[in-house]
This record gives sequence, structure tokens and C-alpha cells, in this order.
Amino acid sequence: MRTIITNIRQLLQTHDNNAPARIAGADMDNVPHIENAWLIIENGIIHSYGSMTALPAAANADEHIDATGSLVLPAWCDSHTHLVFAAPRDGEFVDRIKGVSYEEIARRGGGILNSARKLNEMDENLLYEQSMERLLNVMAQGTGAIEIKSGYGLCLEGELKMLRVIRRLKESVPIPVKASFLAAHAYPIEYKQNKAAYVDLIIDTMLPRVAGEGLADYMDAFCEEGFFGVAETERLLEAGWKYGLKPKIHANQLHYSGGVQVGVKHNALSVDHLECVGDAEIASLLGSNTMPVLLPAAAFFLGIQYQPARNIIDAGLPVCLATDYNPGSCPSGNVPLLTSIACTQLRMTPNEALNAVTINGAAAMELEQTMGTITPGKKANLIITKPMSAFSQVPYDFGNNPVKRLIA
Amino acid sequence: MRTIITNIRQLLQTHDNNAPARIAGADMDNVPHIENAWLIIENGIIHSYGSMTALPAAANADEHIDATGSLVLPAWCDSHTHLVFAAPRDGEFVDRIKGVSYEEIARRGGGILNSARKLNEMDENLLYEQSMERLLNVMAQGTGAIEIKSGYGLCLEGELKMLRVIRRLKESVPIPVKASFLAAHAYPIEYKQNKAAYVDLIIDTMLPRVAGEGLADYMDAFCEEGFFGVAETERLLEAGWKYGLKPKIHANQLHYSGGVQVGVKHNALSVDHLECVGDAEIASLLGSNTMPVLLPAAAFFLGIQYQPARNIIDAGLPVCLATDYNPGSCPSGNVPLLTSIACTQLRMTPNEALNAVTINGAAAMELEQTMGTITPGKKANLIITKPMSAFSQVPYDFGNNPVKRLIA
Repeated sequence: MRTIITNIRQLLQTHDNNAPARIAGADMDNVPHIENAWLIIENGIIHSYGSMTALPAAANADEHIDATGSLVLPAWCDSHTHLVFAAPRDGEFVDRIKGVSYEEIARRGGGILNSARKLNEMDENLLYEQSMERLLNVMAQGTGAIEIKSGYGLCLEGELKMLRVIRRLKESVPIPVKASFLAAHAYPIEYKQNKAAYVDLIIDTMLPRVAGEGLADYMDAFCEEGFFGVAETERLLEAGWKYGLKPKIHANQLHYSGGVQVGVKHNALSVDHLECVGDAEIASLLGSNTMPVLLPAAAFFLGIQYQPARNIIDAGLPVCLATDYNPGSCPSGNVPLLTSIACTQLRMTPNEALNAVTINGAAAMELEQTMGTITPGKKANLIITKPMSAFSQVPYDFGNNPVKRLIA
Repeated sequence: MRTIITNIRQLLQTHDNNAPARIAGADMDNVPHIENAWLIIENGIIHSYGSMTALPAAANADEHIDATGSLVLPAWCDSHTHLVFAAPRDGEFVDRIKGVSYEEIARRGGGILNSARKLNEMDENLLYEQSMERLLNVMAQGTGAIEIKSGYGLCLEGELKMLRVIRRLKESVPIPVKASFLAAHAYPIEYKQNKAAYVDLIIDTMLPRVAGEGLADYMDAFCEEGFFGVAETERLLEAGWKYGLKPKIHANQLHYSGGVQVGVKHNALSVDHLECVGDAEIASLLGSNTMPVLLPAAAFFLGIQYQPARNIIDAGLPVCLATDYNPGSCPSGNVPLLTSIACTQLRMTPNEALNAVTINGAAAMELEQTMGTITPGKKANLIITKPMSAFSQVPYDFGNNPVKRLIA
């Protein structure tokens, strides 16, 4: 199967066979591109590309797509989501607006425990169907690779159910799906007085089963004051490594919790959230391979401070953006709108945002060999945009879906 | 033509024949509704509605819509837009992110003058076609009545061209369209040193032509420091009144400029923007019929302070929300996303946001007799939502279009 796309107004993120694994610092404001281009896909793989002034004979193509007026770019790589959940939590959203505190919401059985109760009650097939609908929806908005976490089970059966649903999603869609094991998302009520016992349960009971069934790619933990502290996170990450699960953790959302440092110490693939990042966190990240992943759509939805993206980039670090799609703090998996929030609120440039959701998103899921750039040999998971003159119109035209077609 | 909609999960904003003209203060958190409802439309007018437990014989209906799982509510009334424009300004958006000042952007020929130059160069038919595409796009997002301003002409011919395009739009779509005359949007370069002469031009030359051709419903002015001061605004509003054009003005976006007070003094239908509102502005609005219209999507896009919606509502005033759709400060006419911004950033409840974009939006366009509520005799411009359990899911599920179908 050979497809040729012609008359591409601008082909973005074009890198040769030595495409970088990630983009950092001042380089993030640069996106290599070709005006008026063609691209050939062969059996789902990018075969070649070039300028329309040197168009190869297309006689052998099975499909010909005329992209006049459109941009073509790598599909979004969304490296942090909780897309598998049982029910929206808009009731808590209204309570929060009316001034009910988190603590009170939690006391009423709300928050992550609310999601856990509903998830544990829900039939696995229905959970799969609802999650699939969400996944197809974000694919229609351009997502071409995604990470999904467990963490609303908080018990062996619930976590296995979520991870099995993620595996079914992975088998059902033409885009890469990565699974992270996040039993350490919150403490179940019955462990509130004996937190160490829950960490033991995760390490001694859940992790062997999850790893044994090959259900997870990564080990996650919500490292935060009042949730899993640095010492508990270390135990969890060390245990994950024993099963070959690389860490990818929640860090520094609400406090300067030491989450970034503990992630870097344990060679985390990424540290995610990062509202609270100062000089110590930046120093820790410099020289590491750990990707800083910012989740500003959650900060928007919660109305809390945004991540200091400029300080991180200006220090020479890479930045990845991800949606955090989840029913509590970010009920949206919309990457185009995420880029709008990043540009208007974090003062990232459109080019920086594009690198953050393509190359750097791929790196935060270890997909840099196959995704994130227009490079021969990589997967042809691509976005053909609606007609527009430049990528800057994606974050600019906020709230509109720029995607005409996702090829995957 | 008779249409019956059945099995409506929730029919919202149901008011009897004495529907209020606007909703203020604590009442804004209340939205009357019926669970499990039917609604009959006859020749585009709401005929009757009720509970499915007392469903009338539907044998005579020409069309039967099964709305199982959906909400039905009045279509959005977006009372402040600049939807007719010639070109996006995403280049300036990138410049702003990179720290280029407004003044520098203006010196380079950017801002409103940039839009004016492009509009004056553009063929009227093309301007109409582009604007129509935008209008159909916002209708697909649920907008069922809209106000559109001139103000990118800044000369007689340009203003007439814009207003003629608005009139063609009005004649082409099944939703009410109101036109505001906003020549006082900025000073053309050639009048920078002689601002009074431009106000004279508006009053003596443009206004008679615009009013003579019946091209405008309202008189607008950008009352702001550095733009049109209180004295100039007074001259403009008095001149507008002579031609029967009620004022509807831009006020208090960047400064405590006196714009609110001058609007109230001249019986403005609405004062719009209102980032800078304190006790004096609230005192002025109390007891007036002038609607405070907040434009938080523009504040979001510009990254400036949001409007103090809570103070305004808690003082007992009504609040209306509008998009401000324009190429400089809000390139989005997405009302569902506007409600998300209002709820997450301004701490308005979903019910308050719903009143603000239906009843109060209608009032800000003098459409309270025909739009804004589900009331027998009013126009059946309605939204049938995608399946959801409550209206709160509209602002909650930010970035997704909740509209399954706009009836208009």
C-alpha cells in the first residue's frame, strides 16, 4: 500500500535519518519544514518526502491525497493521560467553584476515591467501550500516540481491570498506546491509617501480577505531600525497576516535594506536572535524561498557578506538554487546545509547543525511534490540517479542531 | 411544519409566558428545568413543552426527533463579536509571546490598523464568504443569535463594506444577527495628530450614511485611555442617539476609564469587557438597565487579568458573557469554551454561565422577547446536546463541542 500526499502547503518537523531524540532549550523554537511539499507513505511507514518542484512519478501510488492549503505534521504524542475512567466528576467541579474545599470533597467520598469506587463497580466491557469512545475522540483531534495510566482501581482487581482495558485499547487502535501502573495514586480509605501496608500491597501483590501479565510499560507514583512521600516513592520505583518498569512519575504539582529529584535519581523517563519548579529542580534535571512534562491544561481547569515553562526552557532543558486527560483535574484530551494554553498562559512559542507535543512527547514514551518527526522509516502517524497558512494558527485559533484528517 | 422532540433528558431554561427579561444576582445560579421532557415546535416557534409523563398525541408532527440522553436548551446568544474580518493575526500573537510590546506591534502597522488595512484591501464577496464560514462554524458550536461589529474599516467605504457584509449574513442565516457601528474602534494613522477630526468624520459623514441605509442596530465606541476618552465617547453616543442607535460600548478593559459610567449615563444597552470594575462601576450599574457584558475569552487569550464576575453578581447585578470573537484578542467564537473559562477562571457556576449566555445574552441584543428561554411563542433556536447528564458537563468537558444539533 503506497500513498502519496501532494501540494502540502507546509510539511513540518522534517528531520533526516538522524532525527534527534529530543529538543531542548533555544532549539525548541525551531521547527524544520518544507514549503509546498510531497510525502510518500508505504505500508504505514514514511518512505520519502520532498519539494513539489521535484515531484517523483506517482504512478505507482494506490492512494493520492491532495493536501492543497493544508499543513502536514507528525501526530501529537500525548505522554500523560488517565483516559480510562468510569464517570465524569462534574458534580465536584461545581462544588469546587462554590468554594467547597478539596478536603471536604474528599470527606464526602470525592476525588480519586470517587473515581475508584465507580471504576470498581463498572463492568469491564462498558469501561472499555467508554474509554474507546474517548480515545477515538482525541484521535479525531490529532493524537497519534498516547500513554494511559491505571490508578483508579487502588486494589489488585481494579488495577488489573484498568490495565486490561488499556491493553484492549492498544490492540484496537492503529496508534501506539503505552500503559503506566499507578496504583500509588491515592490511599484507599481502609489504608488511611496504615499507609505502609498499601505500599506493601502494591509492591508485594500487585506489581508481580501486573508485571507477570506484561500489562504495564512504566511504573508511576503520585509523589506529593499528603500522598506518596519521597521515601515511599523510592521504595515503589526500586520495586518497579526490579520488574523492568522504568519510572514515569507525578511530581511537584502542589509543593516543592522532592519529586523531581527522586525521579531523576531513579532514572525516571519523565517527571510530570511541575507547577512547583525552582532552581533546585532545574539543576537536578540538567544533565539527566529525565523529560520534564508539563500539564498546563490541568492547571487551567483547577485555576492554580501554571508551570514555569520559560525558566525550564531558558535553562536549556527540553519541555514536553501532555494533556493529563482525567475526570478530576482535566476532563479534556484536546492537544490543540493544550497548545493554546501553553502559548497564552506559559508564554511558550507555537514552535516550542509543537516540539513539546511531537518529538518530546515521543521521547517521554520511548517512541523517539518511530514517532514525533517526519523522518523516513518512522510510522506515518500524521495530521493533515484544515487549510491554514502556518502552524501558529493551531494555538491561535483556540477551541477549534485544526485536524482535517489523522492518518494512522 | 410541526416538530416534536421527545425523551429529552433535561429541558433547560423553561420559563412560562412571563419569562424575565434578564436574570441578576443570586437568581443567576438557578435554571428552571424539566426532567424527561417533550417539546413541540410549530413553524420555527416554540409551541409547548412538558413532561413525558403527559405526552400529547404526536400524530400530527411532520418531524419527530428522539433526544434520548440529550439535554435541550436555548441556543447561545453571543452579544459581542467582530466576526467580520479579513485575515488572522497569528503573526502578532507570536510577536507578543516573544515579548514585543503592543506599541512596537502598532508601530510596525499591527493591531486594529493591520486588520483595517487588510479589510479595506479585500473584495466584499470574499469578505462575506470568509465571514459566513466563521458564522456557520460558531452555529455548529451552538450559537443561535449573534451581534457583529464594524470597526475594521475606519473610513466611510470600509465601514459601509463591513456593515453590508453583516447585512448579507443577516439575510443568509436562520438566526438573528445584530449590527453595531464601531468606526470609533481606533484612530486611522492619518488622524493620529487630529483625533477630533476623526470623531467629526464619524459623526458628520459616516453616521448619516450608516443610519440612512439602516445598516446598524447599535452605536459602539472603544472607550479607553489612549483610544476614545469619556468626552469623545459622549459626543459619539449623543450623535448615535439622534439617529436612534442605542449605545453598546467597549468599556474598562485596560483601565478604570469612566467607560462604564458614561455608558450608563447615556442609557447604553450594554457595557462590554469590564476587566477593571470596582465599587464605583458597580454602583453606577446598580439601578440601571445597562447590561454588564464580560469577555473572559479575550482576557484568556491576552493573558491579562480576568473580570471580577463574582463581585458583580454578588452585588446583585446580572452578568452576560460574550466571546469577543476577533483576530487580535480572541480568535475564537466558541461559546462552550467561553463557559469553561468563566467557570474555571471567573468562578462562575455552570448555571450562572448558562444564564449569562442565554437570557442575559438575549437581553444584551434586545432579543429578550424572542430568544434566551424555552417559552411558548419564542423562536425555537435550540441546542440538542450530545448525550450528557447535566449542563455542568458543558463547561466541564472543555474543548469538546457539546452540540449534537442546532435547531434554528
